[in-house]
Amino acid sequence: MRALRIDVPPGERAARVAWARLVEPRDKQALELIERLGAEEALQAVQPEDRLGQRVAPRLETLDVARDVEIARTLGARIVVPGDDEWPAGFASLVDPPLCLWVRGPLELASECERSVSVVGARAATQYGLRQAAEIAAGLVDRRFAVVSGAAYGIDGAAHRGALVAEGSTVAFTAGGIDRPYPRGHDDLFTRLWRDGVVATEVPPGSAPTAVRFISRNRLIATVSQGTVVVEAGLRSGSLNTARTASGYHRSVGALPGSVESPVSAGCHQLIRDGAAMLVTDAAEVAELVGPLGELAPVKRGVVRAGDEHEDAHRAVHAALPVRKAVAVEDLARRCGQSPDEVIAALGVLELSGLARRIPGEGWSKATGSRRR
Amino acid sequence: MRALRIDVPPGERAARVAWARLVEPRDKQALELIERLGAEEALQAVQPEDRLGQRVAPRLETLDVARDVEIARTLGARIVVPGDDEWPAGFASLVDPPLCLWVRGPLELASECERSVSVVGARAATQYGLRQAAEIAAGLVDRRFAVVSGAAYGIDGAAHRGALVAEGSTVAFTAGGIDRPYPRGHDDLFTRLWRDGVVATEVPPGSAPTAVRFISRNRLIATVSQGTVVVEAGLRSGSLNTARTASGYHRSVGALPGSVESPVSAGCHQLIRDGAAMLVTDAAEVAELVGPLGELAPVKRGVVRAGDEHEDAHRAVHAALPVRKAVAVEDLARRCGQSPDEVIAALGVLELSGLARRIPGEGWSKATGSRRR
Repeated sequence: MRALRIDVPPGERAARVAWARLVEPRDKQALELIERLGAEEALQAVQPEDRLGQRVAPRLETLDVARDVEIARTLGARIVVPGDDEWPAGFASLVDPPLCLWVRGPLELASECERSVSVVGARAATQYGLRQAAEIAAGLVDRRFAVVSGAAYGIDGAAHRGALVAEGSTVAFTAGGIDRPYPRGHDDLFTRLWRDGVVATEVPPGSAPTAVRFISRNRLIATVSQGTVVVEAGLRSGSLNTARTASGYHRSVGALPGSVESPVSAGCHQLIRDGAAMLVTDAAEVAELVGPLGELAPVKRGVVRAGDEHEDAHRAVHAALPVRKAVAVEDLARRCGQSPDEVIAALGVLELSGLARRIPGEGWSKATGSRRR
Repeated sequence: MRALRIDVPPGERAARVAWARLVEPRDKQALELIERLGAEEALQAVQPEDRLGQRVAPRLETLDVARDVEIARTLGARIVVPGDDEWPAGFASLVDPPLCLWVRGPLELASECERSVSVVGARAATQYGLRQAAEIAAGLVDRRFAVVSGAAYGIDGAAHRGALVAEGSTVAFTAGGIDRPYPRGHDDLFTRLWRDGVVATEVPPGSAPTAVRFISRNRLIATVSQGTVVVEAGLRSGSLNTARTASGYHRSVGALPGSVESPVSAGCHQLIRDGAAMLVTDAAEVAELVGPLGELAPVKRGVVRAGDEHEDAHRAVHAALPVRKAVAVEDLARRCGQSPDEVIAALGVLELSGLARRIPGEGWSKATGSRRR
């Protein structure tokens, strides 16, 4: 059998750049061949007759590795391949890892992702969702997590901005080429990310962010971090795909609840109902979910009310005490269905706690803040 | 040892009415004695020296079974004891069942509770919570469930009213005597319940609804029905107590999510996080949670978009098709990273689904609703 003639500069790195141009992300046959032979040798093993060859052939005429490398250089971007220090460790678990990454921005991708949370959600988010995304992102920054997202409108943008405002690290994985910031309405966000964060993509320069590439991109967001939080998502949101991928790869998944009357909370509620996500209400609970043992969120408590620490019997006595007058122990016993001895014991505890007061010659009353003289 | 002298009319029913007057709900020693000897004989076995005797003694002077029975009769209420047809089956599982019940209203308590859901929550509810409580109650009525609650302000009242408006059955368990409707602001609601529903309490006429009695009452709401839904609850709400009791007695528990910024959804979120409650978003999901197998809530789906049923490869081809012009198969193959054969296969499926259109001599384009002539 005769192989396709594929001309590329020598070396694994150049070969991977070529592969990224020749096939779409998650091309099973290409990945198998590369896994078996290495990227460089795999290029020489593509048969024109088989399905991979037929897929590759139409793209051969547009292949120009030197140009793809040059575009990256012009943008101040770098090309990262497996084995590089900057290759994120999380991708090791992927059955279909990226062939290479185009990376732009001052942050070191791998080390930022080592302690990171993906914060994702609907484009058509509500004010509630946008506010919470920014707040959770800022809270994660406070806890030294980098915030990973997809730079889309809505929740993604709010998450990146929340992290940037908190002067933390943020990482964007995009579905189009490194030279095609998308959406255009996020030009300002991309400018911030290029300056203070980092943007990465697995598709070569010039690639349009198509629907299928968004789905492919989601697996990177899902696996590069220790966990994913869905802030708002409709029932068919791509964020659910990210969440289920994260769950499938044994990453922690959280979902923010919201009004059952809000369609963009319906996806979050479905994830929680399915057991695919843990309900989370703030950054502390997200950190607890994704963090190593010991990062426990503070247990939420309401305001402690007078007498709450006492057992029911004591509470009954406290409740039966009048505020403005005093009553005898026997009266209290009758009201509470307790014996006089039990009432006296309770009154003793309540008096110690400053909740009951004995008025000599009269009986007992509730102790209020203001003292009677 | 000499027993206390307790004069009551003969029979178990009268003895239970006496016990309800002499001890508070959940009096362990009284319940043990009654369990062992029966209510009537237990009355004669109370020793003045022991703790039960000392608790009972202060109340002996106010004991008047004939009067308690007469008050019930005057109100049109009936007294129900274990063994009566109207005694709810759910109480059989209680370690501390009521001694007897005062019951008022036309509905038969036991048969209504046989297929019922408790809908409970905060007094200080939001408009969201009130609306949802009423809607869930009405939805449960549509599914032939009775709605059990506690007649309190807020969620309880909205649940009863939702059931009444839907012309369904509703059952209130109150913490005070049958002659003391509480709160007074619910006089109109009680009038409706006495006329079209049923109200029950385990404490004798004249009893004030104290904090401890509310807690005791909660176990009745928790166990009389097949399941409990918490619609809104703060972190220290009594509804959480009801929910955890229901869970402890192996009843189904659901909780409605809400904004994480709403303090009265915090208790619901905590129940869900703890695994004590299932997240539920509507009556169908509540019915699924508490109902016998087979009452499955419809799976929620978003709007189906063109091409969604096709696999990714087909979606990629569909996405690459232009709307206003036509492209050749080879172009599509290059764009999608697929072989021409794969693209042709995808186009065939898309054409069959009415999503792609071949223009002879030109190529392929997206099929839109409007036909080009």
